[in-house]
Parts: sequence; structure tokens; C-alpha cells
Amino acid sequence: MKILITAGPTREPIDPVRYIGNRSSGLLGQALCVAAIAAGHQVTAILGPLHLAIATGVHRTDIETAEQMHAAVLSEFPKHDLLIMAAAVADFRPVRVTDHKLARTGKLLIECEATPDILSAAGRIKQPHQRTIGFSLESAGNIARSRQKLVQKNLDLIVYNPLNTLNSASIDAVLIWPDGREEPLPARSKADFATVLIGRAKALW
Amino acid sequence: MKILITAGPTREPIDPVRYIGNRSSGLLGQALCVAAIAAGHQVTAILGPLHLAIATGVHRTDIETAEQMHAAVLSEFPKHDLLIMAAAVADFRPVRVTDHKLARTGKLLIECEATPDILSAAGRIKQPHQRTIGFSLESAGNIARSRQKLVQKNLDLIVYNPLNTLNSASIDAVLIWPDGREEPLPARSKADFATVLIGRAKALW
Repeated sequence: MKILITAGPTREPIDPVRYIGNRSSGLLGQALCVAAIAAGHQVTAILGPLHLAIATGVHRTDIETAEQMHAAVLSEFPKHDLLIMAAAVADFRPVRVTDHKLARTGKLLIECEATPDILSAAGRIKQPHQRTIGFSLESAGNIARSRQKLVQKNLDLIVYNPLNTLNSASIDAVLIWPDGREEPLPARSKADFATVLIGRAKALW
Repeated sequence: MKILITAGPTREPIDPVRYIGNRSSGLLGQALCVAAIAAGHQVTAILGPLHLAIATGVHRTDIETAEQMHAAVLSEFPKHDLLIMAAAVADFRPVRVTDHKLARTGKLLIECEATPDILSAAGRIKQPHQRTIGFSLESAGNIARSRQKLVQKNLDLIVYNPLNTLNSASIDAVLIWPDGREEPLPARSKADFATVLIGRAKALW
């Protein structure tokens, strides 16, 4: 299988020095790359800024912003069978990026706009032979929101995971299948979770 | 000498997932710790989130926000002879931190306020036997602003460095001494720069 994996955070610049970031470590995406290579798949990874070694054999593209990840995913997805969107993409970004370092001032208003919804965009160009898996990082217990996203983004599987997954070595997830079935995967290492998810992916066809 | 060194960025939370960060890698602070230990000084480091090994023998405190760095510096500075403020402290932070993950919306306004000016606060409690060194990361050529900060923050030495120093392996700096003298230190590795700066520090008494 040819698998496209996104991982890590994105950064949305405010000025040449500051950005809006998020606490994603990329650990889950790193584990997914390892598990997919170990299972004999061809893997392309689109990576936000992270400080992790990525498995040998992965074809890697580094990006910084949600816009760059959007462009990279839409360019790569048609060449792949499966997209696993493990990156924590910024949902919003400053409308204006200042070209000089902002000085300390009394008050500052940062006006933000929504970034492109990459999974929805991939869902719209998905061909009959292709599948997409999304992650839904939600406040504890908010599985209803994950179910909504499964439908809205035209996904084949969504992984609900609570906020404490972020930047953690372990993950306590629930897989939500398109037929409505919930498959809890109680807390385990991200490496173990990744092996299970890559295994489950075959059932999507 | 007992030297207090701050290094790395700070992060200012927007919600449980997002924060305002900056591109500081902590490389310069790391190099200053190495150079100070090598010169036989006692070193305390107050570190923002970074992904670097810190020299053995350094007494280390990890913080995340500007407010936490402010508290740590004011607590530690009285026990030290010299403060070198190499951290890239956020100049502003969100006024309100949302306790749930913000959903993607059409528009979002992040209202920010100034963070405490740590160097100025240290300058105000500085005793006659103590010295403070600041860094001034400015748009290329804006040495006038570094001179202002030297006076405003009651510093004994300020290092002007242009924006491209951030997250770079090298630094192209100018030392500005209180008598107005400018000492250019053309581009060199941060390790070399750190050795020079730790050496120059003795001249501050």
C-alpha cells in the first residue's frame, strides 16, 4: 500500500519572530511511519516542525504552515492509497503577518482567520480506490464531535482521542467506523497504537 | 562567579492546545552555559521549552511562560553575581486563556497584553555588586533601539543582534558598553561568541 502520513504541529507566523503553534510533538506520526514501513508499505510523510528522527525509507517533505501542508497533501494524495492525517494542523492563523518584529505594546489584537480544512479537501478529491483516516483531538468524552467530523470530512475512519494525548507517550483512543461502530483502544504506547491502526487500515477496502 | 543564564523561548497559552511561541532554539543559551562552566563559574539556567542538552553541572529550572520566567529570575538573581538574559521572552500574551480547545471559526480575535519586562525588573533590584547583560534582537541595523534598552533596563552591557540570529548556528553581534563604545563581533559560531562574552563579563566590575 502507498500511505501518506502527516505529522507534527504547524506554525502560523505573527511576525518574523513569533508564531501561533500547538503542543503536538509528532510522536504519533513518527510511530505511524515506523509501523507502516515495518508492515512493508511505501510511506510519504508531510511533517511540521518537529525534533524527532523519522524512519528510514520514508519519503519526507517538511512544511511549516497549514497552507503549506494543505498544498503538499493535495499534491501527494492522488499518488497514494491511504491518507492518515495525524498532524495537529492549526485551525486558525493571523490574517496579517507583520514583516518587522512587533515591539512590546500595551495591547495587541491578533486577528485570525480559519486555515484550509485539509481533510475535507482530501475528502472531496478522494477516488473510489482511496481511503482517508482522520484524528479528532477533543475535550474528554466529546465523541459526538468526532462522529460529526467523520461524516463532514468524508472519512473512512476517525480516531477520537482526548486532549491529554498531545505531547504524551501514550494514547487512549476510540476508533469510529463509518457504520457507527465504536472500537475502544484503551491507553497504550503510541508505537502499539500505530501497529494496530496500520493493521486495521486493510479492513477499509 | 555565580552566573544566572536564561535561554530558549517562552510559550504563552491561547487554549489547552495552542500557544504563542517564538523561533528561539536556545542554542545561544546552551553555548553560554558550556562556556561559563568551562571558565569555572557556577551556573544556574532558567530554560524555556527547548530540545537541547544542557551542560553537566548547570543547576537547571524549566519554565514555560514569561510570567514563570519572571518569577524564577527574581527569585534566583539575588543569589548570583551576573544575569545573562539570553532567552527570547514573549513580549505579549493572550489576556484570556480558554480552558477548552477553540473550535475552527470564521474569525477569531486574540487580545494580547504585555508580559512583565524581566530585565527591567532585575535592573530595579540590582545590588552594587551585581551586573546584568541583555540581548536585543532587532531588525538589521537598528542599533539605536539596543542603546535605548541598555539605559531603560539599567543594564551593564547589551548585545545587539539582528533577527537572523534566531534559530541559527551563528551570531553576528555588536556589544554596546555603558560608556557608549560599540564592539562589533562579526559572524561566528554561538560557541565562539559565548566564550568571548563570558570572558568580557569580567570587565564589568
